[in-house]
Amino acid sequence: MPINAAGRMIPSTLQQDTFIPFGGAHKYQYTSKITELETALQKCGLKNGDTLSFHHQLRNGDYVVNQTIATVHNLGVKNLRIAQTAFFNVHEPIIEYIKNGVITRIEGSINGTVGDYISNNPLPFPVILRSHGGRWSAVKRDELHINIAIIAASTADERGNATGVIGANAFGPISYSQIDAMHADHVIIVTDTISDYPLRFQDIQERYVDYVAHVDKIGDPKNIMSGTTKITEDPMKLQIAHDCVDLMDAAGIIKDGMIFQSGAGGISLAAMKFLDERLEEKNVVASTATGGLTKLICDIYQAGRVKNIYYSQVFDEYSVKFIQNDLGLPADIGHYADPTSKGRTIDGLDTVVLGATEVDTSFNVNVNTHSDGRMLHGIGGHQDTAAGSSLCIITCPVYRKENPIVREHVTTISTPGDVVDAIVTNEGIAINPNRQDLLKKVKGNINLTSIETLKNRAYEATGRPKELELTDTIVGMTKWFDGTVLDVIRQVKR
Amino acid sequence: MPINAAGRMIPSTLQQDTFIPFGGAHKYQYTSKITELETALQKCGLKNGDTLSFHHQLRNGDYVVNQTIATVHNLGVKNLRIAQTAFFNVHEPIIEYIKNGVITRIEGSINGTVGDYISNNPLPFPVILRSHGGRWSAVKRDELHINIAIIAASTADERGNATGVIGANAFGPISYSQIDAMHADHVIIVTDTISDYPLRFQDIQERYVDYVAHVDKIGDPKNIMSGTTKITEDPMKLQIAHDCVDLMDAAGIIKDGMIFQSGAGGISLAAMKFLDERLEEKNVVASTATGGLTKLICDIYQAGRVKNIYYSQVFDEYSVKFIQNDLGLPADIGHYADPTSKGRTIDGLDTVVLGATEVDTSFNVNVNTHSDGRMLHGIGGHQDTAAGSSLCIITCPVYRKENPIVREHVTTISTPGDVVDAIVTNEGIAINPNRQDLLKKVKGNINLTSIETLKNRAYEATGRPKELELTDTIVGMTKWFDGTVLDVIRQVKR
Repeated sequence: MPINAAGRMIPSTLQQDTFIPFGGAHKYQYTSKITELETALQKCGLKNGDTLSFHHQLRNGDYVVNQTIATVHNLGVKNLRIAQTAFFNVHEPIIEYIKNGVITRIEGSINGTVGDYISNNPLPFPVILRSHGGRWSAVKRDELHINIAIIAASTADERGNATGVIGANAFGPISYSQIDAMHADHVIIVTDTISDYPLRFQDIQERYVDYVAHVDKIGDPKNIMSGTTKITEDPMKLQIAHDCVDLMDAAGIIKDGMIFQSGAGGISLAAMKFLDERLEEKNVVASTATGGLTKLICDIYQAGRVKNIYYSQVFDEYSVKFIQNDLGLPADIGHYADPTSKGRTIDGLDTVVLGATEVDTSFNVNVNTHSDGRMLHGIGGHQDTAAGSSLCIITCPVYRKENPIVREHVTTISTPGDVVDAIVTNEGIAINPNRQDLLKKVKGNINLTSIETLKNRAYEATGRPKELELTDTIVGMTKWFDGTVLDVIRQVKR
Repeated sequence: MPINAAGRMIPSTLQQDTFIPFGGAHKYQYTSKITELETALQKCGLKNGDTLSFHHQLRNGDYVVNQTIATVHNLGVKNLRIAQTAFFNVHEPIIEYIKNGVITRIEGSINGTVGDYISNNPLPFPVILRSHGGRWSAVKRDELHINIAIIAASTADERGNATGVIGANAFGPISYSQIDAMHADHVIIVTDTISDYPLRFQDIQERYVDYVAHVDKIGDPKNIMSGTTKITEDPMKLQIAHDCVDLMDAAGIIKDGMIFQSGAGGISLAAMKFLDERLEEKNVVASTATGGLTKLICDIYQAGRVKNIYYSQVFDEYSVKFIQNDLGLPADIGHYADPTSKGRTIDGLDTVVLGATEVDTSFNVNVNTHSDGRMLHGIGGHQDTAAGSSLCIITCPVYRKENPIVREHVTTISTPGDVVDAIVTNEGIAINPNRQDLLKKVKGNINLTSIETLKNRAYEATGRPKELELTDTIVGMTKWFDGTVLDVIRQVKR
């Protein structure tokens, strides 16, 4: 029997088990993790070919992605894979870093400018588009392995506890990065505000953090709050929103204890406003609103017409103040939408109202590409909430200008028709024929049409969709949240 | 190229990566997870040889362990390994289940009756004793694989969100079981109180939970709160406690921003009381108290003499009310003490005051066995806080009745001398000679003696320790929190 460092005789094996003798103990101390961004990247062993991840919660006001990639460039490192949750127009400098080989792969949403560029100038490997829940699970299952997670925080303490809830550039709780923090080889918090230990809000805890990079500014507060929180004033869209609530009512889901998803798009917000009015009219108290938080939802809560709020994102200043006062329950993306978990907050959704760039006669929805084939948007929570809700409502006009929106085949499948229950348009409501139960329920209470009729109406008004001429090159892929490939996005011939 | 379930052509491989085509989507719904304990165990596939885990936060009022093992017995399942965080006297029925072969292995603290029994009637495999942090890391590293985690909660909702903070039998936040919930094959919440979804306190979230077993009573509230929160009235112990604070003062750590551990043992509590008086006297504001919460610490906080509280356990009714009002910061055992993490709350501890059943001239500490060789106590946070603190103070009398407490070799090493800085006894203070820096600092400010002198004093008063006659059978093992074996506990000859 070996003698261990404490002088005791220890068996090496016993029955089937083996034992390692104690080799000595030492004191554990913490040293401040605060450093420069460049130093942090170097200490995390940044090298060619690494995967770096980011969250998108600073939205179009984000300075962190551009600062980080500029630093990587200065360090002479190339061939990165970027695993952001989303890019916005503010990330246009990414295009230069693609041109000079700093970035060669992207797995994450690419909204706007960067998406447009890549659509015409494909990367050596297709962009992988995933839903919120799909990305969480891809990191968890190590399908998407992250070398260095870069996590923007509006405040952090010197040991690495970090939040987005307080600070000059508060953007709401960090919700996307917990899984990166748990699974990445290295974790860097990037913040412009250091507070005393221990930070009261700990969206990310010190146990996961290697370094805290202290920068001048994480973003431009004017553009951090999304500005998508204005209710539409377009009469057509207001009508669609109103019809959504009539459909919910006809389906019998506007009742005590209902659970609904609150989005921040124009029609979704209007639908929430009309839903609120209906709750009041019917004297109904909902159980829970999930998803993104806006003043509208805070007001519904404070008026007592919904008992609980689960928030994963926060979209306006008012809502930031709301959660700073410990109101509502935070739900990180794993709690909200991880498909590999034993239960997600969205699995109880009675209804969700979602948008579309196109829908087809199989009820497939496209939110990623325009009808000209350009890849301009992410999936977000579209797939997740569609699958989690009992009544998934897609809203869109039947056509836009010369372009049929309801069509035979969507350009790209973002969410499969299997989980879409109804399409509400400016020319009527179509229910997915797979949902005979729903059809039976609403028939007689509300006017219905068929998806074929809507498609025909679109084709009559605009002609058939223009056939896209495609190359063999795959620009991007949409994945279903279980990791399988839903569709490919091919380059359009110029 | 195969065509996927959405009718799209998908490449099977691209560069080095392989892709699985989408196979179809379905709606996700939740169904209530509430069931009977027996049904839950059956549905989790309970079988011979399984490992079942429990937390100890209902302490000597716990009904959950006994109920569960009785149910296992009724189901005819045998040969279990139990991985509780701790047993108390209330768990005496375990002895019967050991005798009839339901339980054949134990990895966890066995306080009192069960420990006494096993000391004389060894199991086929030694009991493995780990610290709080060591157990967390053993589960995380899969050294201790759990088949079914049984998690007692004072309130849960039907989807499995669970807490110990509210409800008739509230015991404080569930802090030990998060790692079990994340790594066990199956997870059962056991509760006597079901509340509306979503539960406001979510110590364990629905994403980890398979079933919610609804039982009549999880415990006896009279015995859930430990009763260890009385400050000692023994003049000798009060003197030791006072000397601890003098030592802290001499070491220069009683200053603005200090971080200290708050325990619930008699001497530790008294030391906290004297520390509080010293804080006031010196007009010092501490940064943070970590560990177990008692009214005393709440009072220090509310008087403004410590700015923050991190609590992992809650020891009295007053403190339960305190945290129900969102005061203080919860720290689960991973945040508090996981040695495999990138930072623990205890790594910043300036000081901790801990007890001992024996100490030796190498500053090794025994808290697990009595000098007669019986295994009667767990390690708790002893190792963790000793290693995490800058000044780890061990308190004990030099001898008890005929038994020398300070001695040449402790019966069992629970915490190695490498991380012990000072022994404060009723006959003087000894500083670990490894800590020359500390010795230099305190010399002249406080009277010191040597550990040899204390041992000699003990031997003069009592004679040398009686040599134990041991068999070859190993009854238990103490592990250092990195998973290595610190010591073995052998059966004493009758």
